[in-house]
Amino acid sequence: MKGEIIAVGTELLLGNIVNSNAQYLSQKLADLGIDVYYHVVVGDNFNRAVETVKKAFERSDLVVTTGGLGPTDDDLTKEAVAEALGLELVAHEESINRIENFFNKIDRPMPDSNRKQGYIPVGSTVLENDNGTAPGVAVEKDGKTVIMLPGPPKELVPMFEDKVLPYLRKKTKSIIQSRMLRIVGVGESMVQEMLRELFENQTNPTIAPYAKEGEVHLRITAKTGSETEGQYLINEMSEKVKAILKENIYGYDDESLESCVLKLLLQRNLTISIAESCTGGLIASRLTEVPGASGSFMNGIITYSNESKMKLLNVKEETLVRHGAVSSQTAGEMADGIRRESGTDIGLSITGIAGPDGGSEEKPVGLCFIGIATKNGVETFKHVFLGNRNKIRYNAATRALDIVRRAVL
Amino acid sequence: MKGEIIAVGTELLLGNIVNSNAQYLSQKLADLGIDVYYHVVVGDNFNRAVETVKKAFERSDLVVTTGGLGPTDDDLTKEAVAEALGLELVAHEESINRIENFFNKIDRPMPDSNRKQGYIPVGSTVLENDNGTAPGVAVEKDGKTVIMLPGPPKELVPMFEDKVLPYLRKKTKSIIQSRMLRIVGVGESMVQEMLRELFENQTNPTIAPYAKEGEVHLRITAKTGSETEGQYLINEMSEKVKAILKENIYGYDDESLESCVLKLLLQRNLTISIAESCTGGLIASRLTEVPGASGSFMNGIITYSNESKMKLLNVKEETLVRHGAVSSQTAGEMADGIRRESGTDIGLSITGIAGPDGGSEEKPVGLCFIGIATKNGVETFKHVFLGNRNKIRYNAATRALDIVRRAVL
Repeated sequence: MKGEIIAVGTELLLGNIVNSNAQYLSQKLADLGIDVYYHVVVGDNFNRAVETVKKAFERSDLVVTTGGLGPTDDDLTKEAVAEALGLELVAHEESINRIENFFNKIDRPMPDSNRKQGYIPVGSTVLENDNGTAPGVAVEKDGKTVIMLPGPPKELVPMFEDKVLPYLRKKTKSIIQSRMLRIVGVGESMVQEMLRELFENQTNPTIAPYAKEGEVHLRITAKTGSETEGQYLINEMSEKVKAILKENIYGYDDESLESCVLKLLLQRNLTISIAESCTGGLIASRLTEVPGASGSFMNGIITYSNESKMKLLNVKEETLVRHGAVSSQTAGEMADGIRRESGTDIGLSITGIAGPDGGSEEKPVGLCFIGIATKNGVETFKHVFLGNRNKIRYNAATRALDIVRRAVL
Repeated sequence: MKGEIIAVGTELLLGNIVNSNAQYLSQKLADLGIDVYYHVVVGDNFNRAVETVKKAFERSDLVVTTGGLGPTDDDLTKEAVAEALGLELVAHEESINRIENFFNKIDRPMPDSNRKQGYIPVGSTVLENDNGTAPGVAVEKDGKTVIMLPGPPKELVPMFEDKVLPYLRKKTKSIIQSRMLRIVGVGESMVQEMLRELFENQTNPTIAPYAKEGEVHLRITAKTGSETEGQYLINEMSEKVKAILKENIYGYDDESLESCVLKLLLQRNLTISIAESCTGGLIASRLTEVPGASGSFMNGIITYSNESKMKLLNVKEETLVRHGAVSSQTAGEMADGIRRESGTDIGLSITGIAGPDGGSEEKPVGLCFIGIATKNGVETFKHVFLGNRNKIRYNAATRALDIVRRAVL
C-alpha cells in the first residue's frame, strides 16, 4: 500500500515550526507495512491545497493530512479534500454537539466560527478528538482512503493511536509487529558493542537502536504471516537481548522510565519523597506525570537556597560551609532529611550546577550529586552531565529516577 | 519569487529523521522575501525524484534540494535534476581535486565512488563544501534556478550562509520582516473575534494567528523595500494589536512565558515560592528552566497528601475537612502558608484534580484552584482545564504563571 502525508499550514512554509507530525506518522505507517512515497507541505491556500490533494489521491492509496481543521477561515483542509474528491460537506450533529459541550464545560459560549469544525465530507467517518475541538475525518473513495488529522501533536498523536491505528490495521495484510526495548544507563555505542553479534546476524526479526534523550531504544521488528509467528520471533530475540543487557532494560514499548519507577514502588508498597535543587522540581514533576503517582509519592521540596536546605531538610550548616551546597555530603543529608521529614521509605535528593553560570574549575557546570536514603542507609552518586541547562536538568532527573529503579530492584 | 524545497531521502520517509533542513531553509528564504509554496520529500528513487523536480521546476522560480549528493548509488539528486532539466552531467576537475585533497588530509585513499561527487550539470555553478566532500550546485535555466545542497545540517547550514545567501541576494528585491506577538489568557477564536477588523483589512503587513499549547501566537509580516520601512509598518500594526489585546500580550518573538515571568520578578526585585499539589512540581520546574531563576525563586513544596499540606504549609485541618483539599479555601491557605514559611514576596499555590481518576460530579477532573499571596493579601482563582492528565497539568501551570505575571504587572 502506497502512502502519502500532506501537511497543510503556512507556518510550516515560513519555518515557524518543524514538520514533526510527518516524522511521527512515517514511523507509524512504516510499522503497518505502508510504504510512504511522499511528504508534501502546502500553505493555507485553497487552490494549492486542492491541487496537492488531487495529485496525492491519484498516485497513492492512502493520504494522511495534518492541520487545517481549526475554526478559522485559514483552516481549509476539509474543504480542499471535499473539493478534490468531489464530495459535499455536511453537518455532523454529534460532532457539533461535542464541540458545544466542550465550550459548556469551560463555561464559555461557543464562537460561531467553531461550528464549521463539525462539518465533514458526506459519507465519511468521524474520528473523535478527546483533546481539542477539531474532530478527525476518514473518507474512502474508489478503494482509496484520505485521513484528516488535527495539527497539534497533542491532539494528533492520541487520535492516531486510539482511532487511526485500529482503522488502518484492518486494511493491511502482511503483519509487521514490533517491540521497543527501553534501555537506560548505557549509551548507544555501548549498546551496539554489546549486541554486535546480534546486529551482524539479524534477518527477521530486525533490530535497530534509536538514541533518545538520556536513553537508548531498541526496536525489534518481525514481518510475518501471522500474529503468533511474529510474537514468537520477537520473544526469542527479546530474550537474547535481555541475556546481554540485563537490568539496563527497564521497560517495553510505551512504558516510560517514570511509569516503570512508579510501578515498582507501588508493587513493593514503597513511599518516596524528593528533595531537589538544580532540577527545580523536574524529578517530582516527571514522576507525578504518571497517573496514580499519589499512591507512592508523598511530597517534594525544592530548595534553591542554603537557608531552605537547612530549614526544610535539616542539612547542617557545617556541611554547607565545609563541602558546599553541591557536594556528596549535602546530597546525602538532603536525602536523609527529606526521608525523615516525610516519613517515607525512600528519600531521593539532587544538588548540582545546571548552568549556564555558576561553574568553576573544581565544580564545573553539569556536576551533580544524587543521594538516596532508605532504611539501609544513605548512598550518593556523582555525575557530570553535558549539554545546555535543559539537557543537564533532564538527564540528571533521568539518572536520579534510574537510581531509584536500581535501588528498588 | 516562488520557492519550493525538495528533500531527497528515504530516511525521511521512514521517519528516522525529521526534516529540520526544510524548516531552516524556509526561514532563510522567507527573510529574503521568497514565498515558499511547497515542501516535498521524495525517497531515493530515480523516477519519482525526476518527476518531483520536473513538477517543482514548472510551478516555482526557485527550487532548493537537500540530500542525495553523497557517493553511493542511492545518492541521485544531481542525476535526477540533470534528467528533469535535460542537461548532461560533466566532470568538474576542481571539485574532484578538492575531494582528493580531503581524503589526503585524513590520510585515506579516495574510494572510486567519491569521484561522482565531482560531476555537475553542464553550465552550473559549484558551491564549495568546507565541511564535507559533496559540493553544492546551482543551475539556472529559462530564468529559473535549482540549488542543490548536501543533507547533513552541519554541511548545509554553513554552505547556505556563506555561498547561497550572497548568490540569492542578487536575485531578490523586497525584504520580508516579521514579529511574533505572544498571547496568553485568551483563545485563538477569541483573538480572531477581538481583532476581526484588523484581520479583514490586512494587506501589508499581514497578521496570522497560531494556536499553541495554552497560548496564541500572532505573526505580523511586512514586505517592503527597506528595513526601516518594514520596522515602521510592523511597529504600527503591533501598536494597533496592543491597543486591543492589552496585557494579554506577554512577549515577543522567542520569549517564553516562563522567562517573561522571571524577568518581571527580577526587574521588580520580588522573590517567589511555590506550593503545588496537582502539578507535582511542574510550575517550579518550568520557572527554573530559565537561567538565573535562583535570583527570584526561593523554594517549592509539593504536597500530595493532606498531612503534608498541614505540616509543611500550615493548612488548617478544619479547612481540609470542611472544603476538601481541592477548594478555593485550601488554595488560599497553601499560598499564604508557603509565603510565610519561605519569607518571600509572593506565594503561589495550586490544588486540583489532574485525573484520569479522582473526579466527581461536583469536582470534575480538570478542576483547579490557584492561589496567590502577596503583601496585599490572598486571591484565588478557579478554572476547569480539559484534556488528558498532561494537558491539564501543563495548562494549569501556564495559567498559574500567567496569574503571577498579571499580579506583578
